[in-house]
Amino acid sequence: MSEYPAAPDGLDEDGARAELIRLRDSIDNIDAAVIHMLAERFKCTQQVGRLKAAHRLPAADPAREGRQIERLRELAAKAKLDPAFAEKFLTFIIAEVIRHHETIAADAADAEDTASVNGARTR
Amino acid sequence: MSEYPAAPDGLDEDGARAELIRLRDSIDNIDAAVIHMLAERFKCTQQVGRLKAAHRLPAADPAREGRQIERLRELAAKAKLDPAFAEKFLTFIIAEVIRHHETIAADAADAEDTASVNGARTR
Repeated sequence: MSEYPAAPDGLDEDGARAELIRLRDSIDNIDAAVIHMLAERFKCTQQVGRLKAAHRLPAADPAREGRQIERLRELAAKAKLDPAFAEKFLTFIIAEVIRHHETIAADAADAEDTASVNGARTR
Repeated sequence: MSEYPAAPDGLDEDGARAELIRLRDSIDNIDAAVIHMLAERFKCTQQVGRLKAAHRLPAADPAREGRQIERLRELAAKAKLDPAFAEKFLTFIIAEVIRHHETIAADAADAEDTASVNGARTR
């Protein structure tokens, strides 16, 4: 008989430590993948931001956001991820995107003001 | 000459709309990939949670979190993603994971109390 009762998973301390390392390696691989996907996502949303600024479209689009949330909640449920978390996640990402879009729009407006001033000077 | 000046990107309204749809389709594909990666990540962290509860390890691990944040900031910088955003993102995910771990630990403690009570009754 061991001095200490075995943990409910039957692993001793070394076994538990090895299992923790194995799981953390997987988490680190997944995080690297997600960071690269998000980098690509922001490349797309930066392009959307420039497009919206050039065509004077509003930065936020509540109808599109509603459809995105509905779709991601369904995808999450099928993947056994908490749909409420998927919604929180998208809201978190969209808040960052809108912040970017507003910066792009402000930069575009500044550039336009400068161009108008320069245009007036050369006319 | 067109009645309206062309947008700075040279696209007319139909062109801008088509470009917006193209970009949004890419964003939707990326979001589906990220949701599935996060579902897999939470499978790993649920296993970590059970392991920590079984071996009475603390739910949070600030040293590990510090290393994760440093690594993701570096990966983000290489991928041209704002490192500050990568850090905010990881903090957001870890907050959810700790919430899960605390739930698992509380459930494990409840199960143990019930087992003790049952054990006392049958002894």
